[in-house]
Amino acid sequence: METMKKIKKIGEDDPRRIVHSIKVGIALTLVSLFYYFRPLYDGFGQAGMWAILTVVVVFEYTVGATICKSLNRGGATLVAGALGVGAEYLAGLCGDKGESVVLGILVFILAAASTFTRFIPNVKKRYDYGVLIFILTFSLVAVSGSQVTEILQLAHQRLSTILIGGATCIVISISVCPVWAGRDLHNLVAENIEKLAAFLEGTWIRGIEDESSMLSSKDNKDKASYLQCHKSVLNSKATEESLANFAWWEPGHGRFRLHHPWKHYLKIGALARNVPAKWKHLVASEFQLKMQPACIKMCTETSKALKELSSAIKNMTYPLSSAEIYIQNSNAAANDLKSILETSSLPTKSDLQEIMPLLVITSLLIDIIKCVEKLSVSVDE
Amino acid sequence: METMKKIKKIGEDDPRRIVHSIKVGIALTLVSLFYYFRPLYDGFGQAGMWAILTVVVVFEYTVGATICKSLNRGGATLVAGALGVGAEYLAGLCGDKGESVVLGILVFILAAASTFTRFIPNVKKRYDYGVLIFILTFSLVAVSGSQVTEILQLAHQRLSTILIGGATCIVISISVCPVWAGRDLHNLVAENIEKLAAFLEGTWIRGIEDESSMLSSKDNKDKASYLQCHKSVLNSKATEESLANFAWWEPGHGRFRLHHPWKHYLKIGALARNVPAKWKHLVASEFQLKMQPACIKMCTETSKALKELSSAIKNMTYPLSSAEIYIQNSNAAANDLKSILETSSLPTKSDLQEIMPLLVITSLLIDIIKCVEKLSVSVDE
Repeated sequence: METMKKIKKIGEDDPRRIVHSIKVGIALTLVSLFYYFRPLYDGFGQAGMWAILTVVVVFEYTVGATICKSLNRGGATLVAGALGVGAEYLAGLCGDKGESVVLGILVFILAAASTFTRFIPNVKKRYDYGVLIFILTFSLVAVSGSQVTEILQLAHQRLSTILIGGATCIVISISVCPVWAGRDLHNLVAENIEKLAAFLEGTWIRGIEDESSMLSSKDNKDKASYLQCHKSVLNSKATEESLANFAWWEPGHGRFRLHHPWKHYLKIGALARNVPAKWKHLVASEFQLKMQPACIKMCTETSKALKELSSAIKNMTYPLSSAEIYIQNSNAAANDLKSILETSSLPTKSDLQEIMPLLVITSLLIDIIKCVEKLSVSVDE
Repeated sequence: METMKKIKKIGEDDPRRIVHSIKVGIALTLVSLFYYFRPLYDGFGQAGMWAILTVVVVFEYTVGATICKSLNRGGATLVAGALGVGAEYLAGLCGDKGESVVLGILVFILAAASTFTRFIPNVKKRYDYGVLIFILTFSLVAVSGSQVTEILQLAHQRLSTILIGGATCIVISISVCPVWAGRDLHNLVAENIEKLAAFLEGTWIRGIEDESSMLSSKDNKDKASYLQCHKSVLNSKATEESLANFAWWEPGHGRFRLHHPWKHYLKIGALARNVPAKWKHLVASEFQLKMQPACIKMCTETSKALKELSSAIKNMTYPLSSAEIYIQNSNAAANDLKSILETSSLPTKSDLQEIMPLLVITSLLIDIIKCVEKLSVSVDE
């Protein structure tokens, strides 16, 4: 029962997952049809199997990942096949005994060299799968021990089946409820900024409530969800990077052109993560606060600015003048606070102890505002 | 030239990468030998290809990942093969026309359901590859259109070749300079704590230097490397998780038993990441500090405690009494600082402005000490 509930929740959290599962089923069933059309099956022979293999391995959740793997697979098979034929030809010149030795050495060298290239960050990022397929195809061709003419026929069959499999995947993945990595990245970044705004608001609304309710269990739950939410922002780095990576492969879709500056999203995401790193401290310290109007104003204005930035990203609008006004407001509040501190009467000893946490938070808030300002500049770009 | 230098650097950074590449080459050449022994090749027929495929796909950098993929592949092929035979038998009962339809429906249902299970976090973590192979094998068996007896023979061949491929990978990966995910995780966590210690020390040594040298370019470079180092600690979450995941698959090795508590490493890692999140602020704020002896003491003692913890992890020793002494020292320093603040004469207006940054940093340092204390408790476990 517990497991069933969890599984149901996974589907409810993102219904596109169910759609994706059905899409894989359709693609696989379609490709299997090739097997049932006997004439085609007889034409391709065993190679028909490769179409199924391609669909299973290549069909990924996002369009970008599917295209990335299909192109990698197709390209690598082509290059490795050509090299394999060359190796066969070369080895054939060395006589019957020498052939196996030469081929063995070639396989060893190419496998070792290709495996090493997988450690190069840029290759790993974009062509990891292609290198794997390259090693595989080259080894298979080299050790098949067939004549060059046989291999050429085999290669032709295999390439066309991979093409069928890959094309099926790409077409279905784009035409049926496509999951664009680019759009996901776009929304993730915008949502993260929105979460930050809600978190900042929430921290301070919580502060305004009287202390008795703060200690109740409901509030603890609330607090946990706030912590959860800012943690999800902090931990979104890996997701953002892989999405940006896959988005690179995607053709233009919706309001995104082909060469959309995906790198800027990573930059915005990194800046957004800077903010909760500071907040983390703000919440963790759990000081019993004496609220000051200037503090609240700083918070609400910054929060409004963040919301403005988030919606600017979502709607892809450029004029961020309203966000700038909010930032100016919060800066003004910060200055107010500073002047209050300066003009206030000298604190007594006991006051200093009480005032200290407030000072800490004030200085953190000023820093957060600076951070949001940088974020705003980055979003403008 | 630039590329060559980069490639050379990758090899120098971790020579095990070169060894790994050579290991893959050896495994692949060994398995291809099966092709050259004609009697064996004739016995296995086309299935010999699967041994090569298995080696290429299954051989990973760490021992844990290799074992994980081998077991996943073997297990999934077995289960899917058995289910496939069952499906063929069931479809055979429905007559010639009904067979294709029943098989098509079965493939669709199983592919969709299996793809959906890949979204379940626990399945994704450990059996992602197995589910992929399950879909693949089931589809291949179901659409092959062969008789049940033929399939059984094919399955026997394929399983034995996968066994040969998988066993070759596991044996070579363990026997030749093994890369244990567990040991890597262990070292990564210890190194991260050491980096924190160096970072804390560095921050304050920098503070002691006179201001003119602080503004020189050399110092900027230093600062950049400090920031770099604490960033690498902050970003190590994904690496730690995947290592812990693979370490789960590894047999006992060195001083690690089979059921080593890998989860504790993740806990320690998360706590360690908490520390630079606070430091980040400490450095970013760049206040012109008035140094106080208590602050320096807090820093050096905490740094010593961190070093102690790191070496305790490295050598797997339990008595952390010396680390506790350092933590007590830094706590004492923190209390000293507090009492200094309390007993000091009332600050004048201008003093308050100057003293504020110091107060902020002091409170941050006290928090860091608390964090290190938690870390120490966690390491004890």
